[in-house]
Amino acid sequence: MTVLSLNSFAAGKWVAPAGTITSLKSAIDGRVIAELGARLDFAAMIEHARTVGGPALRALTFHERAAKLKALAQYLNERRDALYELSYETGATKPDSMIDIDGGIGTVFVFASKGRRELPDDVIYLDGNLEQLGKTGAFVGQHVATSLQGVAVHINAFNFPVWGMLEKLAPTLLAGVPAIVKPASATAWLAEAAFRMIVESGLLPDGAVQFVAGSTGDLLDRLGSQDVVSFTGSAATANLLRANPTILENATRFIAEQDSLNATILGPDAAPGTPEFDIFVKEVHREMTAKAGQKCTAIRRILVPADHREAVIEAISERLAKTVIGDPRVEATRMGALASLAQRRDVLEKAALIGSEARQVYGAENGFAEGVDAENGAFVSPMLFACDDPDGADKIHSVEAFGPVSTVMAYRDLDHATALANRGAGSLVASVFTHDPEVARRVVLASGAFHGRLYFANRDTGREATGHGSPLPHLVHGGPGRAGGGEEMGGIRGVMHYMQRTAVQASPDLLAGITRIYVKGATTIAGQKHPFRLRFPELEIGHTLETAERQVTLEDIEHFAEFTGDTFYAHMDEEAAKANPFFPGRVAHGYLILSFAAGLFVDPAPGPVLANYGLDNLRFMKPVSPGDTLKVQLTAKAKTRRNAEYGEVRWDVTVVNQDGEQVAGYELLTMNQM
Amino acid sequence: MTVLSLNSFAAGKWVAPAGTITSLKSAIDGRVIAELGARLDFAAMIEHARTVGGPALRALTFHERAAKLKALAQYLNERRDALYELSYETGATKPDSMIDIDGGIGTVFVFASKGRRELPDDVIYLDGNLEQLGKTGAFVGQHVATSLQGVAVHINAFNFPVWGMLEKLAPTLLAGVPAIVKPASATAWLAEAAFRMIVESGLLPDGAVQFVAGSTGDLLDRLGSQDVVSFTGSAATANLLRANPTILENATRFIAEQDSLNATILGPDAAPGTPEFDIFVKEVHREMTAKAGQKCTAIRRILVPADHREAVIEAISERLAKTVIGDPRVEATRMGALASLAQRRDVLEKAALIGSEARQVYGAENGFAEGVDAENGAFVSPMLFACDDPDGADKIHSVEAFGPVSTVMAYRDLDHATALANRGAGSLVASVFTHDPEVARRVVLASGAFHGRLYFANRDTGREATGHGSPLPHLVHGGPGRAGGGEEMGGIRGVMHYMQRTAVQASPDLLAGITRIYVKGATTIAGQKHPFRLRFPELEIGHTLETAERQVTLEDIEHFAEFTGDTFYAHMDEEAAKANPFFPGRVAHGYLILSFAAGLFVDPAPGPVLANYGLDNLRFMKPVSPGDTLKVQLTAKAKTRRNAEYGEVRWDVTVVNQDGEQVAGYELLTMNQM
Repeated sequence: MTVLSLNSFAAGKWVAPAGTITSLKSAIDGRVIAELGARLDFAAMIEHARTVGGPALRALTFHERAAKLKALAQYLNERRDALYELSYETGATKPDSMIDIDGGIGTVFVFASKGRRELPDDVIYLDGNLEQLGKTGAFVGQHVATSLQGVAVHINAFNFPVWGMLEKLAPTLLAGVPAIVKPASATAWLAEAAFRMIVESGLLPDGAVQFVAGSTGDLLDRLGSQDVVSFTGSAATANLLRANPTILENATRFIAEQDSLNATILGPDAAPGTPEFDIFVKEVHREMTAKAGQKCTAIRRILVPADHREAVIEAISERLAKTVIGDPRVEATRMGALASLAQRRDVLEKAALIGSEARQVYGAENGFAEGVDAENGAFVSPMLFACDDPDGADKIHSVEAFGPVSTVMAYRDLDHATALANRGAGSLVASVFTHDPEVARRVVLASGAFHGRLYFANRDTGREATGHGSPLPHLVHGGPGRAGGGEEMGGIRGVMHYMQRTAVQASPDLLAGITRIYVKGATTIAGQKHPFRLRFPELEIGHTLETAERQVTLEDIEHFAEFTGDTFYAHMDEEAAKANPFFPGRVAHGYLILSFAAGLFVDPAPGPVLANYGLDNLRFMKPVSPGDTLKVQLTAKAKTRRNAEYGEVRWDVTVVNQDGEQVAGYELLTMNQM
Repeated sequence: MTVLSLNSFAAGKWVAPAGTITSLKSAIDGRVIAELGARLDFAAMIEHARTVGGPALRALTFHERAAKLKALAQYLNERRDALYELSYETGATKPDSMIDIDGGIGTVFVFASKGRRELPDDVIYLDGNLEQLGKTGAFVGQHVATSLQGVAVHINAFNFPVWGMLEKLAPTLLAGVPAIVKPASATAWLAEAAFRMIVESGLLPDGAVQFVAGSTGDLLDRLGSQDVVSFTGSAATANLLRANPTILENATRFIAEQDSLNATILGPDAAPGTPEFDIFVKEVHREMTAKAGQKCTAIRRILVPADHREAVIEAISERLAKTVIGDPRVEATRMGALASLAQRRDVLEKAALIGSEARQVYGAENGFAEGVDAENGAFVSPMLFACDDPDGADKIHSVEAFGPVSTVMAYRDLDHATALANRGAGSLVASVFTHDPEVARRVVLASGAFHGRLYFANRDTGREATGHGSPLPHLVHGGPGRAGGGEEMGGIRGVMHYMQRTAVQASPDLLAGITRIYVKGATTIAGQKHPFRLRFPELEIGHTLETAERQVTLEDIEHFAEFTGDTFYAHMDEEAAKANPFFPGRVAHGYLILSFAAGLFVDPAPGPVLANYGLDNLRFMKPVSPGDTLKVQLTAKAKTRRNAEYGEVRWDVTVVNQDGEQVAGYELLTMNQM
């Protein structure tokens, strides 16, 4: 294998290593795999992102960006074999690589799908509901989000070079913001290979992504109020970067995902012999050994009922003893190497610190598989510690050995367990193995504020449970305090990290013009045609229909009751209805109002409206008494999404009585032909 | 008037001034009004908040906290006359004081109301929707928010001593977090008086609020990962505090609301003679002179079409010339004094910097009302500048003279206007005076990312418009970049600043146990009684009813069509229905399904269920063909709120066919008796 020369990608051009060159070595045997070094014009890169990439991305709607992400995920998915091959040299086994590579690609797929389902086919996102600010509704408020007009700088960690890049790129690009990616050097050859595929796909607009294979130089000193730094790495580095005067002065957003002493709690109910106990042991073992423990989310602290401590130590140790440690390419291998000799040194140093407060109960025998280069390869044995005084201890709650290292400690009761979990002073995830809902609620109340994610597994979640250590694109990844105080992903929340929320105050007409969504009180369009006669592209927001009137008679109510079987007393019995605090006497069924309303606005013959697929936010505002007359106003409110054949339309429906008082309001959902 | 001795309130006790004593002077005539100085045990105060105030607040549900806020707002409202009197000495006129005092109390009322309407009657808030994480739904995700377990330190500005305190206290207390309030010294006597009322009300639990009348000493050095700093003041101070090593190390949340060069844009369509032009002139004048221009949100930059620049200068100057500046107690006075002589010095210095790039077109004549103490009182004239080269200028976009100072500049076209507005590098608010929805949308797209709030006013918003400079509790207040990158208020968003979001992953049973909200797949309770026979307190989440079956015949469909008038072809014409991509042939109306479902689950005789007041998230999942059979499962999902007589219940309704396939699903809302 020749030594790879890792290029940067700056302002649309590949740039070969220059300046100080660093050699990167195989985690398995220490051979030089690649070299890198960046001497780049960061001002020009930022300018390129801001003036070329940003405008190009912002010209696309969320749905168009989502389509690009989906195509990109498919493109990478077809080429992932080449990435696996490069991944072995980072020390990763095939399952480890799947977390990184398939996990990264899967994350892009989820963001593509959420972008299409949860964001509009436009460039402005509506955050929350309309706020009526005055009595008549002539002035309303609506929070919206628009793309930041700067660049996102992604500073990534070495442990998941592909996932770490893609989980940040997907929400950033979906937000319409260009990115400059800075991978960790230790495993940069894998990140560069994946990044190269992204460029070669030709799917993204010019300037959407750039890549720094080497030091970021003065990049951060050049950021401004529209830029974002998304950092994954050590707290020490994060704090240094956060204190950068330019970043402070411009209040540049800084998202950090740093250290974490993740805990797991074996529930008080999960004694040996319960399914929870077995699931717990299996999960702890998996978290210790997957990726050789180099996961930000790995379990570092194991909290167990005092009575079960020895059983836990025994069960985990038994599993660890069966774990084959060796060349990640070999199929029998269950745990590969750490990413580098430097990492091994660091892990051993940190393990020694933990060892000052806890005794080692498993490991350090170097029981590696045959053929392992224990000197030049970054192999370590899993190490399990037991701490007898978790309350008095300090280092086991604050020192993160970023490898297959974890400490068992006993708790007295659930309050003690959560107090110990909280001693991590903020972490990415804690897990709880319990079958008791009350235990679950108590943990959330006592520990929720200290954790970005709480993972509950038990006999019911068995096969579907996604794993203590797996951040998911749907859920936030990050945590308070020591974990950096940041959040990534979390579905659309992660997209908002790259957008600005703005409170818009305006008249209904202006707000409708801004958001392209009809707002009550805005001018409507009373066309010649019934709006149901308009195809999706013809239909304009505000197209409206005022129906004829229909009287609701007592006979209608009685007939509806008999026909449907809904003989609720408020419809049938004048005396009883009058005694009800909400009704003046017998009233029409809510569903009768809905049904008559449909009868008034439906256009019977085949046409562009194919189906009513649902209804939202129905509220009955005023009772309808026998003799009252109904009339409906139906207005096209939003066109939410479309494919080649049809699109979804949301209609505002207002039902009024003979006095013009609103009796019901809702949103109707239809599928309309192109 | 005797000199007031301002006390701190620490760990439940009033503490007289000690240490270095500072004298605070009247803004009107320089008399000493009050003195303050704090030598406090900040460690004990933090401990008191964390161990006494926090647990007491967290023991209350959101609704209980909201009720306390409402009572507190009422208590303050009855006593506000005493506050007005103290407010005059800060230089504020009666209308200025109303912004501060009534505005602050009103903010508490809004949070009380939102807390009751938008938060649950529990201590866990659900953020966003359920995320199904597996195929069967055996493992689901839900973001929740729980109270931070630390203390909120509020560092407030001098300009709105009451509002500034209350707009932070309301969301903090609603979140269940105790606060330590540090008012700005210059106007601390007013803040102390309002704070004293809060304590004297006896409405809040011990430890919920504390007060520092003086320096915060080492308070910030003692904060941790569960604490929050909410700072309002200068960027210089903010950056100093943000860089505090303890705050960085613990990722302590730091919300900053600092400088802002707020712009207003006179729309290209708003020529002299249009209603928008007049509204604009009136608003600019108001923003320049209200609170003598000492508003974080005041208009500092006035962007007008080049053609209308002279007309604008003339119209504003004319209004300014009529503005009586003098003793705020005098009724004819339209503008009072700045808060202090130090502020006056600062404003004059900053105005001089602006004057280096723009010529002054109005002001500095010291045309004060008779009897004004121009030497010892902090009076200034409004100053209007005009800048001929706004593109080349720097200081007019970066120097904030915190007084009645503003600069007019001409723009060529809308792109130029938004580019100039964005030169503020992040601000709290920008306003636009236009009647053209397209102008509004273009401004949002071009400038949204630079502003926390965009305020559009025109002929339609006239009477209801709340004012360019008025932050509202419903809307976020804050802005990117120079404005500090923070957000306050924004309704429930502001409450979340004091809570931690956690992604919970669990089985439906555990999640339902945690959130006390039924989750599909969780165990249900099939009681002896129809759940509609249970009063609100008796009803448990998960109480369920499985109804009998009912067949839907072709006759039913035809009859329903005829009766309601909904003769849509998919119900009436087999051939046409078959041609529709969604239907296998003629199908039942969606509203027929709903109506029959109600017929199956409704319990006719009077009972605890008083009314169905609405329905949410209805989706039709599968067509119902003639001959199909319907059956309903109705399950109590959530008890959302209650008063003395009745409570609101949300039901999960699932309608299945003879094959057990779901044909429709929705949430039903009922009002249930206590």
